[in-house]
Amino acid sequence: MSGKDAEQQLHELFRDAFRQRRGVGGPGDDCAVLRPPKASVLHQTVDQVVEGVHVEWGTPPAVFARKLLGRTLSDLAAAGARPWALSWTICAPAKTAGHAWLKRLANAFLAEAESYSVSVVGGDVSSAPDGAPVVLSCTALGQGPKIAPGRGGALPGDQILVTGKLGGAVSSGRHLRPQPRLDQGARLLRDCRPHAMMDLSDGLAVDLQRILSASQVGAQIDLARIPWANQGQQTRAQRAIELGEGEDYELLAVLSPRATQSLLKTRVGKRDWTCIGEIVAGRRLSWLDAGAKLPRFKPQPWQHKLTRP
Amino acid sequence: MSGKDAEQQLHELFRDAFRQRRGVGGPGDDCAVLRPPKASVLHQTVDQVVEGVHVEWGTPPAVFARKLLGRTLSDLAAAGARPWALSWTICAPAKTAGHAWLKRLANAFLAEAESYSVSVVGGDVSSAPDGAPVVLSCTALGQGPKIAPGRGGALPGDQILVTGKLGGAVSSGRHLRPQPRLDQGARLLRDCRPHAMMDLSDGLAVDLQRILSASQVGAQIDLARIPWANQGQQTRAQRAIELGEGEDYELLAVLSPRATQSLLKTRVGKRDWTCIGEIVAGRRLSWLDAGAKLPRFKPQPWQHKLTRP
Repeated sequence: MSGKDAEQQLHELFRDAFRQRRGVGGPGDDCAVLRPPKASVLHQTVDQVVEGVHVEWGTPPAVFARKLLGRTLSDLAAAGARPWALSWTICAPAKTAGHAWLKRLANAFLAEAESYSVSVVGGDVSSAPDGAPVVLSCTALGQGPKIAPGRGGALPGDQILVTGKLGGAVSSGRHLRPQPRLDQGARLLRDCRPHAMMDLSDGLAVDLQRILSASQVGAQIDLARIPWANQGQQTRAQRAIELGEGEDYELLAVLSPRATQSLLKTRVGKRDWTCIGEIVAGRRLSWLDAGAKLPRFKPQPWQHKLTRP
Repeated sequence: MSGKDAEQQLHELFRDAFRQRRGVGGPGDDCAVLRPPKASVLHQTVDQVVEGVHVEWGTPPAVFARKLLGRTLSDLAAAGARPWALSWTICAPAKTAGHAWLKRLANAFLAEAESYSVSVVGGDVSSAPDGAPVVLSCTALGQGPKIAPGRGGALPGDQILVTGKLGGAVSSGRHLRPQPRLDQGARLLRDCRPHAMMDLSDGLAVDLQRILSASQVGAQIDLARIPWANQGQQTRAQRAIELGEGEDYELLAVLSPRATQSLLKTRVGKRDWTCIGEIVAGRRLSWLDAGAKLPRFKPQPWQHKLTRP
């Protein structure tokens, strides 16, 4: 099959898959036509999943779709926004991504999108040279608050909270099934005026540091308060590795002491959020264990070890 | 440099480059915050440029940037929409895309965006395995008409018009510098109510066929009326090759005879548009030369011949 034919065939498959879409504008047209509801504020984010970088070589299409959508929507969750419209791109060599593979990918992506009630309004598919990795990208538009919480508002005395469980997301395979915390993000923004909020994609140490830098503050995190995904007995060295893996796709939020108190008094707040430390003056991120300082503790930056088949 | 460090470095570079952006929402946050003007209708499109597929291996970063933006905005032109906000992704191996390469790419992209007065509001950069092609994607939001002209409204007797010059865009290198016909598209939509409009990316024969299929009509195109980019004496076989190359990134529009007449009476309309044929009943696309039928003429599907270095 010639390059042009292959590409044409991919385009047709892709277009057929979009028959289900609920955005305005027919499939096959140059653009999707979107009518934002009155006075809405749109939040836009874009993310990628690359074979051999974010997922193993030979990852099944449904796993690709799930990770791509999950990590993209996690950014919207961090802004307290609700997913509204998606577009995506596929770049894949004909050898990996035959007709059946692409169909499974498109169907899985549409099903994932459906589960978040978000419309897939557009896409582009390109062939790639032989041996190239599959590269997917997804741009999401969400509807959300007039001002996103951002990262620059943390103050000394504020409390640091996270959703879900942290650590070991890559080694356990949890990174392949991110659960974007859309409800938690939107609810926190509505009820608690967070001073900062973001999602945890590069690991607690790296991501929290971004808030600290933007806010020009320091923080103390207590290992004993972290809701570990792996609840077995682990050494501190093991915890340093687990934390460094990143890809938790949980939310990290900074709240005033008062907002924290009222959040954790509610049933839903207590279920969704755990307080793991606090913002302090200065610029340092310090680690404690049950209140005792750990001057040498340092989460280990994760090295994806993905070998080509 | 480890994978994670490289990625981190790319992210920082990318973020720095976005200091110039005019969208709301600070660089480094999870999402861009966009406030669509009241009652606006947004047109969204997404496109890719892949090394070894759409451009040669080893293409300079500024050429990548120009082609990416040009072909993406060409889709907005076809909808009669004005560019408003862009996001983009870069996936590139560290070997090809060192710090300096990425900086040149980002700067070129921002300069191109500036030249179209469109804001770059977000982006994502990922490393890629060694030997992988550079893969770029761009999602553009435009503001435009409530209803895009689409492809399904062509009627027998309608006239077929194009902007600019056609043919030989790939072999001449013109495909690397698309000139999205934004003014022409918006003006035509405002003044002439086109029955169909699209941009020419896959070649006149392939693209026109999409309008014919959507509208369930046929067409006659006269080679003698086509505004050829290559104005020298060419055989019909050469013209068949030139047309098949595609990537003209000109607009193709279908207008009522009356709208065509009034368009071509104006100075600007006459400068921008050329009538090359007409819609007929039936389903066939027929080719003429100065009125004489060419039953065997067929544009040759182009095969990108891009070899790996």
